[in-house]
Amino acid sequence: MANSRFEYVKQFEQGDNLLLNTWIVIRIDGRGFTKLCAKYNFEKPNDRRALDLMNAAAKAVMMELPDITVAYGVSDEYSFVLHKTCTLFERRTSKLITTIASTFTSYYIHLWSTHFPDTPLSPPLPSFDGRAVCYPSMQNLRDYMSWRQVDCHINNLYNTTFWSLIQHGGFDAKEAEKFLAGTLSADKNEILFSRFKINYNNEPEIYKKGSVVFRDYELVEPGSHDVAETVDNVAEPRTQSKTQDENDKKRRNKARVVVDHLDIIKDDFWDRRPWILSNKPGKVPKQT
Amino acid sequence: MANSRFEYVKQFEQGDNLLLNTWIVIRIDGRGFTKLCAKYNFEKPNDRRALDLMNAAAKAVMMELPDITVAYGVSDEYSFVLHKTCTLFERRTSKLITTIASTFTSYYIHLWSTHFPDTPLSPPLPSFDGRAVCYPSMQNLRDYMSWRQVDCHINNLYNTTFWSLIQHGGFDAKEAEKFLAGTLSADKNEILFSRFKINYNNEPEIYKKGSVVFRDYELVEPGSHDVAETVDNVAEPRTQSKTQDENDKKRRNKARVVVDHLDIIKDDFWDRRPWILSNKPGKVPKQT
Amino acid sequence: MANSRFEYVKQFEQGDNLLLNTWIVIRIDGRGFTKLCAKYNFEKPNDRRALDLMNAAAKAVMMELPDITVAYGVSDEYSFVLHKTCTLFERRTSKLITTIASTFTSYYIHLWSTHFPDTPLSPPLPSFDGRAVCYPSMQNLRDYMSWRQVDCHINNLYNTTFWSLIQHGGFDAKEAEKFLAGTLSADKNEILFSRFKINYNNEPEIYKKGSVVFRDYELVEPGSHDVAETVDNVAEPRTQSKTQDENDKKRRNKARVVVDHLDIIKDDFWDRRPWILSNKPGKVPKQT
Amino acid sequence: MANSRFEYVKQFEQGDNLLLNTWIVIRIDGRGFTKLCAKYNFEKPNDRRALDLMNAAAKAVMMELPDITVAYGVSDEYSFVLHKTCTLFERRTSKLITTIASTFTSYYIHLWSTHFPDTPLSPPLPSFDGRAVCYPSMQNLRDYMSWRQVDCHINNLYNTTFWSLIQHGGFDAKEAEKFLAGTLSADKNEILFSRFKINYNNEPEIYKKGSVVFRDYELVEPGSHDVAETVDNVAEPRTQSKTQDENDKKRRNKARVVVDHLDIIKDDFWDRRPWILSNKPGKVPKQT
Repeated sequence: MANSRFEYVKQFEQGDNLLLNTWIVIRIDGRGFTKLCAKYNFEKPNDRRALDLMNAAAKAVMMELPDITVAYGVSDEYSFVLHKTCTLFERRTSKLITTIASTFTSYYIHLWSTHFPDTPLSPPLPSFDGRAVCYPSMQNLRDYMSWRQVDCHINNLYNTTFWSLIQHGGFDAKEAEKFLAGTLSADKNEILFSRFKINYNNEPEIYKKGSVVFRDYELVEPGSHDVAETVDNVAEPRTQSKTQDENDKKRRNKARVVVDHLDIIKDDFWDRRPWILSNKPGKVPKQT
Repeated sequence: MANSRFEYVKQFEQGDNLLLNTWIVIRIDGRGFTKLCAKYNFEKPNDRRALDLMNAAAKAVMMELPDITVAYGVSDEYSFVLHKTCTLFERRTSKLITTIASTFTSYYIHLWSTHFPDTPLSPPLPSFDGRAVCYPSMQNLRDYMSWRQVDCHINNLYNTTFWSLIQHGGFDAKEAEKFLAGTLSADKNEILFSRFKINYNNEPEIYKKGSVVFRDYELVEPGSHDVAETVDNVAEPRTQSKTQDENDKKRRNKARVVVDHLDIIKDDFWDRRPWILSNKPGKVPKQT
Repeated sequence: MANSRFEYVKQFEQGDNLLLNTWIVIRIDGRGFTKLCAKYNFEKPNDRRALDLMNAAAKAVMMELPDITVAYGVSDEYSFVLHKTCTLFERRTSKLITTIASTFTSYYIHLWSTHFPDTPLSPPLPSFDGRAVCYPSMQNLRDYMSWRQVDCHINNLYNTTFWSLIQHGGFDAKEAEKFLAGTLSADKNEILFSRFKINYNNEPEIYKKGSVVFRDYELVEPGSHDVAETVDNVAEPRTQSKTQDENDKKRRNKARVVVDHLDIIKDDFWDRRPWILSNKPGKVPKQT
Repeated sequence: MANSRFEYVKQFEQGDNLLLNTWIVIRIDGRGFTKLCAKYNFEKPNDRRALDLMNAAAKAVMMELPDITVAYGVSDEYSFVLHKTCTLFERRTSKLITTIASTFTSYYIHLWSTHFPDTPLSPPLPSFDGRAVCYPSMQNLRDYMSWRQVDCHINNLYNTTFWSLIQHGGFDAKEAEKFLAGTLSADKNEILFSRFKINYNNEPEIYKKGSVVFRDYELVEPGSHDVAETVDNVAEPRTQSKTQDENDKKRRNKARVVVDHLDIIKDDFWDRRPWILSNKPGKVPKQT
């Protein structure tokens, strides 16, 4: 509506569209969560309430933005994946990362009191920054997801051992750090078991594997299809009809968004859920 | 800590640092606020509670991020200005825009119940997207700010007239739109006055001028200094000592962040508050 | 070696690295070649000397920059393809496009007198601009190449007909343009044949197909291998040993760079020359 | 003209427009000139023919691209400055840097035989890479130019001493390098004078100062105007009429492009030639 001699300033905006036909990963990270953990007395090494809150926020983000095909969270970070054919906001970086960071924050704050009923928030409030990275191939994307889950495993094994030494072994932080310097995974497993009778394998999956969020359709028999081929065959440019798009949308909306704690490094997770990489909605199970 | 064959995926991140020695404006916009206004019954043409909430969130953002030198808000948008010498997050676009969008959102949700005590939030929740634009000269920046304030004025005059026609004149939306098509400012003023006895000049400043947020130091006599020169003389690169930086920081933290509804198009606002453009904190008033 | 208070200006350079694991196409275009064609009396619709000069320059570029895996030229443009694993100049856009544009220009000017012995150059001299585009998938790259060759065909059929009408049919430019408006390929073929006894199929391949430049190894039997798979299996990140790299380099240097006029739309060209897409040098033929 | 199912590949091009209202510096550098100097027996420490060739090519570039307001060259590099109001090629990085690198190369090759009549070129041929950097303020730009000229001075003093030691002092390269390690400017001056009777001040200006290329109008009395103000007052956005643009263009074309070897660090050079920074053509001298 407006019209003035100042409008020329609009021309200073610069393009920031992400390369077409690449997988977009948007990762958000908690800002200053070390302080925040201390302030709100998060339990160590893992605070179940805090993780459940992260997962609830991530789930809400996925329901508001159906273009997100899968998400993976660990600790105070969450990675959201947009399919390589996604055209949301014309793939403009700014719009994508601020929308996801803001929507996530919105639910995190809104749902805080549900997960921390006895701990009211006070300034400075939790917030999240974010960034986008493009991955050209499915393998790159799979490797990104694996990277985060390996990171989860390594950190959790370390933290579980570190905090056992402190909470049950009489170490202080410096001593525990020194004690663990140079140890391998096997060493940490051994320390946990011999000193604290903790079998790391029996630790909760949510701590060991992190959380993966996806739409739930009927599982597919591995080997009955070729995901890689399906993904590669996604026409370039997209040639799907509007009717098909509408149908896909309806089925996507019917699907339940679930949070689970599964191995996403091996093929099985992806093979049984081909819709995540193909972006073609699966069969909605009868009893939802 | 982690270390795996998947780590190569980190290399896909691309640089997004904003050009040095330019003013950075980060503007956030409410997503889908037309629907949101309807859902929560925002008053028309302006909802004072909603604007106060926007302003409270903006003020909190400025207190958490002292690098922001001034902010301007109207309707569901807010522009935050980082000084041309700012080096926050190495001027990385992603970090800057997501941090501001997320922090703003955080306070908006947290403070909602204070401003809308009888209207609980429910999904889909409010969220904001954001973008960064660089302005090389002080004039460009001033013109950007003027652009937003002119926009505020034009929209508010239109909306005030439009909603008067509907609320007090018996028009429906289509009729009002048609009636106002092609009218000039003078015409709208005349309609308001002759039909509804409304003198537009007497409308609240917050609606006519929007809201400007800044740190409050002792005002300076216009003409007693040359802002433009001061700004140009900001050394390139910055040569200030660490002690000076520390002093500046202390004074900045002591300063009250205020929200006001002033003319930011004319020189007076800027001349009397040279610290906004020079980034040199002013004199903190005695009685804060 | 230098060191001065002015050095800070180096920090204003911004990153421009192209996304990893994508095919890089660098296309150069003659600047103002319409004027140039007139100035040096290039023959219409095609000047064989000018095309040979373009091809000679492109061949020289490929020999100086072994990272280029294939090139395709038509009229006053040439597209150079860098393999998706290429790390030349750390994939910096500026270095890549200026190096290719400059090297091409260098040979174009140097070889001019060989191809136009009777037509000395005079200012303003020929020059070329360039740009880089990334293609994430092999299919995208193939489609790019096909796009240029289809363009070549369509333009050449049009130009052949257009100039026949003028040179042999007594039309002037406006009349010819009007006459051809709305005609299909079949119509132009018919015009050429019925009016000028020209069978378009018998026109020289260089005009109909453009020119493709590549390293020449022993052809491979189509069907004996799976190029797509080979390309996808290019490890990410590259895991090849230095010895293998050295061997590849030697074989690449031994290979002859050839210019040919083949169909690059169909699979056959690529199937028989898997080294172009796999970046693994083929078998050097014995008699070079 | 063309139209095919492959055309979608055009959409993969990404924007690369340089920020408005900033000075654009495009610097080109000789590729592999150390080898080239050896191959063509360039004289050490400076080859006058090679520098004259660089300057001739730079002058030709400035005549073909009137948007370039000033250029500065030293050794095998040349920096070309586009005024902050320049809109050439919509300020697209790729077009700007390839056009300048290619045009420069074109003249370098074309004019080679004039400057090296007895030394024919042979592959690999000379070529140049290039890059663009934006400078928001006039001071940044001036500092960039000063940086290059200080660099010229430091390198030339070193090289003059180094090669004197070798050519007249019986040192080999390693000995000379070791001998000069840690020496200051005063030391090198002293070595030159005491050992070789060379007064560095009397060395040719082209070696000590490098070469600056600009349009030649009537010099202006320093102090009679305020360049900085004039530059700042360049309206944003440009408000000049088309007639004024045309007049400017005519005067610019009438002006002689000259190469000189002047101090561009001090104000004097810029004060006496206000047109370089204001982009307003000066008064064309009568006897050209």
